[in-house]
Formats: sequence, structure tokens, C-alpha cells
Amino acid sequence: MKVSHIEHLGIAVQSIDESLPYFEEVLGLKCYNVEVVEDQKVKTAFLKCGEVKLELLEPTSPDSTIQKWLDKGNHGVHHVAFAVEDGVANALAECDAKGIKLIDKAPRKGAESLNIAFLHPKSTVGILTELCEH
Amino acid sequence: MKVSHIEHLGIAVQSIDESLPYFEEVLGLKCYNVEVVEDQKVKTAFLKCGEVKLELLEPTSPDSTIQKWLDKGNHGVHHVAFAVEDGVANALAECDAKGIKLIDKAPRKGAESLNIAFLHPKSTVGILTELCEH
Repeated sequence: MKVSHIEHLGIAVQSIDESLPYFEEVLGLKCYNVEVVEDQKVKTAFLKCGEVKLELLEPTSPDSTIQKWLDKGNHGVHHVAFAVEDGVANALAECDAKGIKLIDKAPRKGAESLNIAFLHPKSTVGILTELCEH
Repeated sequence: MKVSHIEHLGIAVQSIDESLPYFEEVLGLKCYNVEVVEDQKVKTAFLKCGEVKLELLEPTSPDSTIQKWLDKGNHGVHHVAFAVEDGVANALAECDAKGIKLIDKAPRKGAESLNIAFLHPKSTVGILTELCEH
């Protein structure tokens, strides 16, 4: 697999409205897009920090995966998304062949219409890992 | 504050030897430095992913902050380090003036001899945040 860079960090927050001031007024970053991803039951807000996007994830429903994650007392970085150069489908096949546990067996559409797939943290040193089309 | 990019992600692992194969053989990244930071009771291994370093943190003692964090059932991204362009001391003063809770009141030396300081996650949307000299 050829990873070119970190495409984004997924950061779980209870409220985008309450979290954005930290990123914008303290760190000086700028939110450039807010989008709802219906099938993941999240509202997302994107900021750019160098070449990496920060994707704030606010649950839109009590049964959102992100809400459940927050309810367990977790906070902060929910997942790390790596941009792969040779396509997500190829990367998944390579991961599968190397014994990595896959959450998604095939690429699907994520926020910003990127092809994405998740790897299981049990196989990825405890980091919920997303692969993104470059 | 002017943040230029994410300097590194601090990733807590129980064993660098057991974790490196995922980063090197699956993601195709390369470890370029291993270093012990005595005062933080960690062994660190650095890989580069685009402009961001991945800093693997292995506790060297049962009373290491990282060991205690892992013992609570945490795993994965332990902290996010932002590179600031106007110096860590200035950034800390600005954070303090804006009511951000500081862990370090003044810059200190971290891995790779960078000037660093930590902000408290209670003030930073739950993300343990490090500021690094650019």
C-alpha cells in the first residue's frame, strides 16, 4: 500500500457549534464546509490544518455510532484517515491478504464523496483507521 | 495563534516492536528514529506520513503517564501536536489570555529537542493538545 498523507482526523464532538470556537478562535483554523452524512447519522464540519483536514463529527441521533462512542466516555480523535495512492479497493485487498480485519469489505462513499473504507482497530494498533481515495 | 500544520500524532502502544510491522508492512511507512525520553518515561519511534510525524509512545515504566493511560483501556491517538509559527511561549500566553487551561505554563524540551507545551483536554474539545515550535 502507498499512503501519501493523512487525509483527515475524525474528531467526535457533542456539539459542532460549541467546539468550533476552539478551533477557529484559539488555533486560528477556518471551517470551510458543514455537511450531514445521513447514513452515518452525523453532522460534519471541516477545517484545514496544513495538508490534513479536521473532520468534526457531531451525532445527529442517539443511536449514531459517534454518540455511542461518546457515551462510553471517549472523546477526541475518533479515527485517522490515510490517503492511499493506488485506490481503496486495491488497498483493501492488500490488507485482507495481510490478515488485517476489515470493517468494510468494499469501498463506499463517505463525506465529500470520497471512496472510503474502514479497518478494524483490533488489527491497527487500536486506531480506528479509514482509507481514502487520494 | 498561527498553526501551520499538525507536527505529529502521539500514538500510545504497549510495544513498539509489536506495533511497527503494521505501520511499515501494511501502511508502507518507514521508521526513521527511535529515542527514549527519560523524563516522560517513554520510548518513542517516529515515522513520517506526508508532513505529519507519527510518534509511537511505549511506556518504559509502570508509572509512566502513557502506561496509566493504556491501563484505563485507552488506545490509539493519545495526543495531537500542532506546529505554531510564532513560538510556543507566545502561543501559551495567548491561550492563557483566552481562558484555555494549560498543563505547561512555559515551554519545555520534548522529543527531537523541540520546544513544546501541553494544553489541557478539558479546554480543547477533549483532545490532549501539544503545541510545538515550528
